[in-house]
Amino acid sequence: MGDELLAGFTVDTNGAWMGRRAASLGLPVRARFVVGDSAPDIRGALARALEIADVVLVTGGLGPTGDDITREVVAEALGRPLRLDEELLDELRTRWATWRRTPLPAGNERMARVPEGALVLPNRVGTAPGLVLDVEGRIVVLLPGVPAEMRGLFDGGVEPLLRQRLGDRLLPLVHRVFHTTGIAESSLAERIDEGIPENLGPVSIAFLPRLTGVDVRLSARATPDDPRAARWLDRVEALVEPVLRPYRYLAESGDIVECIAEEMTSSGRTLAVAESCTGGLVARRITELAGSSEYFLGGVVTYADEAKRAHLEVSRDVLAGKGAVSEEVARAMAEGVARVFGAGAGLAVTGVAGPGGGSAEKPVGTVWYAVHLDGRTQARRSVFPGARRAVRERSAQAALALLYRMLRSG
Amino acid sequence: MGDELLAGFTVDTNGAWMGRRAASLGLPVRARFVVGDSAPDIRGALARALEIADVVLVTGGLGPTGDDITREVVAEALGRPLRLDEELLDELRTRWATWRRTPLPAGNERMARVPEGALVLPNRVGTAPGLVLDVEGRIVVLLPGVPAEMRGLFDGGVEPLLRQRLGDRLLPLVHRVFHTTGIAESSLAERIDEGIPENLGPVSIAFLPRLTGVDVRLSARATPDDPRAARWLDRVEALVEPVLRPYRYLAESGDIVECIAEEMTSSGRTLAVAESCTGGLVARRITELAGSSEYFLGGVVTYADEAKRAHLEVSRDVLAGKGAVSEEVARAMAEGVARVFGAGAGLAVTGVAGPGGGSAEKPVGTVWYAVHLDGRTQARRSVFPGARRAVRERSAQAALALLYRMLRSG
Repeated sequence: MGDELLAGFTVDTNGAWMGRRAASLGLPVRARFVVGDSAPDIRGALARALEIADVVLVTGGLGPTGDDITREVVAEALGRPLRLDEELLDELRTRWATWRRTPLPAGNERMARVPEGALVLPNRVGTAPGLVLDVEGRIVVLLPGVPAEMRGLFDGGVEPLLRQRLGDRLLPLVHRVFHTTGIAESSLAERIDEGIPENLGPVSIAFLPRLTGVDVRLSARATPDDPRAARWLDRVEALVEPVLRPYRYLAESGDIVECIAEEMTSSGRTLAVAESCTGGLVARRITELAGSSEYFLGGVVTYADEAKRAHLEVSRDVLAGKGAVSEEVARAMAEGVARVFGAGAGLAVTGVAGPGGGSAEKPVGTVWYAVHLDGRTQARRSVFPGARRAVRERSAQAALALLYRMLRSG
Repeated sequence: MGDELLAGFTVDTNGAWMGRRAASLGLPVRARFVVGDSAPDIRGALARALEIADVVLVTGGLGPTGDDITREVVAEALGRPLRLDEELLDELRTRWATWRRTPLPAGNERMARVPEGALVLPNRVGTAPGLVLDVEGRIVVLLPGVPAEMRGLFDGGVEPLLRQRLGDRLLPLVHRVFHTTGIAESSLAERIDEGIPENLGPVSIAFLPRLTGVDVRLSARATPDDPRAARWLDRVEALVEPVLRPYRYLAESGDIVECIAEEMTSSGRTLAVAESCTGGLVARRITELAGSSEYFLGGVVTYADEAKRAHLEVSRDVLAGKGAVSEEVARAMAEGVARVFGAGAGLAVTGVAGPGGGSAEKPVGTVWYAVHLDGRTQARRSVFPGARRAVRERSAQAALALLYRMLRSG
């Protein structure tokens, strides 16, 4: 609930968070409605949600200001008049005085008004409590919209309550996620479809494309002690794994830099990077992870040709003869940056990120990247689709993926 | 549309983006429905949306895989049979061949199927085109869920079309946004509240904090030719402007790099950057803007002390005596990088981004940044709150803001 969600000033992270938590609890989300601070729209969303779901989680609109009307509108729509809970009011006053050392503002007194028959969930992070209502066997929960408050109330109150009330009706979602890079969603889907039987039992497969690659997710819904789901997941995993293997990387965060960091650190290698069109993006991604100083010595962003020559010892002849976006320059940059930083490994990217700078021979999106490792250099060329940002992101990922493949195979 | 939105694997940033764009167009969003890849739920959401709105924007489910069913379900629900558009298919095949050098996969051929009477919006970033349908005077738009594709189609096709079709029914939100950096939201709000009368007419003020600063937004809803709103906005702007002035920068994109690019390019100066704790973030931000090669020569990421010495000519004595995070090292890095790149300006950042590496004297978040410009060097120290990512973002912004202030005052 909230105008700011519709107007886009706030991104609905609560929805995603509750979706994940509810799914792993075994209560998949059927739909999410986002409406503004308007009584008819709140009533409409509540009515529709009660038609299609057993549990309705409502967040937002429990605050102290005039546009916070969720508590009042829901109480009225469900025919549960609000009563002042004196004990709750005392508690709010005491806690406010402790935190802020001022009296509870009048606007916050409304937070002690409770719909008839509601269970009150104490809010340890903020002021407005959570409220749980039984509506003809279905459960309606009102929670504040501030993420930290919503999460605290969900963990401390809503989740235990749902487990207790719904018990054996819950079917948790068990899933396995495989990260891939370097293959298009449609090609991956085709190859997997080819090798897989029609009947996957309770297992479903989803493809989640990102700029940096495609995640493949297998999921099955089952009680935790049901061995059937795990057996089906094993069976499907065994079928898809050979297809995924050449493109797969194992990173809890989904970031291939995590795998690179592990390989580099465990083998005691060091890395330096040279970037042209990615302009610092590869270095930024590497250093985003804490601990990168263990293997990352540094990098050079050589935007100008002269800088490629001066800082990476790329020869003037190669630059002039082959052009800055060429296999030869990518190789020379990777070897040069490893040499000047005294690193065991060097990575380089040079390309045309656009929107300008393209030609018939080297259109926008043309990128050469190279990795120098243990005395060997490999270079690859790609033509990436998309705008400047997408080309840069895809180039950085392709270069990192090449480094990872060489680390693994070496 | 999409199971991954309900399950929370994807945060619905599209909803927020479209909400902002629609609001500024004069078409405030009434409600947002998120449903899974299920035909009855897609039909239900579409029917409800058509009941309450003049324009229905649908994103997601136009992709190549089996769970992408939005096109088919919407076409059927609206009684518009899908027809293969041969011309579109040819175009998709040609573009795919250019990008990937492989034939268009069978799954992608579905993207050339168009509901009867639909207008096709070409997708320049990806494959699936946008589709626009007239439904008894209301407009239904189908867009892919990949954010870059959705945004490209919205900008290039949907927005002009809505302007043309809805014209004088639009009541745009007229707003003026002031970007500030270097002052906290609460301090800014306090100072503005002090100097402003209770009655602002139709104007409302909002504070939008970001990691890189706080945007102050004045807004009023009015037709473009209504002089009343403009007069009120002028009046309020005149009151807040003096408070904002020291922290303000004028950039359409909200990115201070835009201002720096303008100053550098118009004055014919060149820039090089040296980064330690920001690890490439400053260079990435500078090169994110097309045309940066006009003034940006390059940069060095010197994570290791040895690299600071070798590549930036920072003396061993200064590094040993003062430590890598010190005023002296920041100054030496800024001057060194300008010298080795032969640039008129040098920018440097060195700090403790965390989570490790802090001490009592230099806690996590301690950052020294320096700018060398026209023979003068200025250095500043800040202790930034937040986790590693936040410290890095704030450090990059602070260094860029220092460069901008020096460019403006020089």
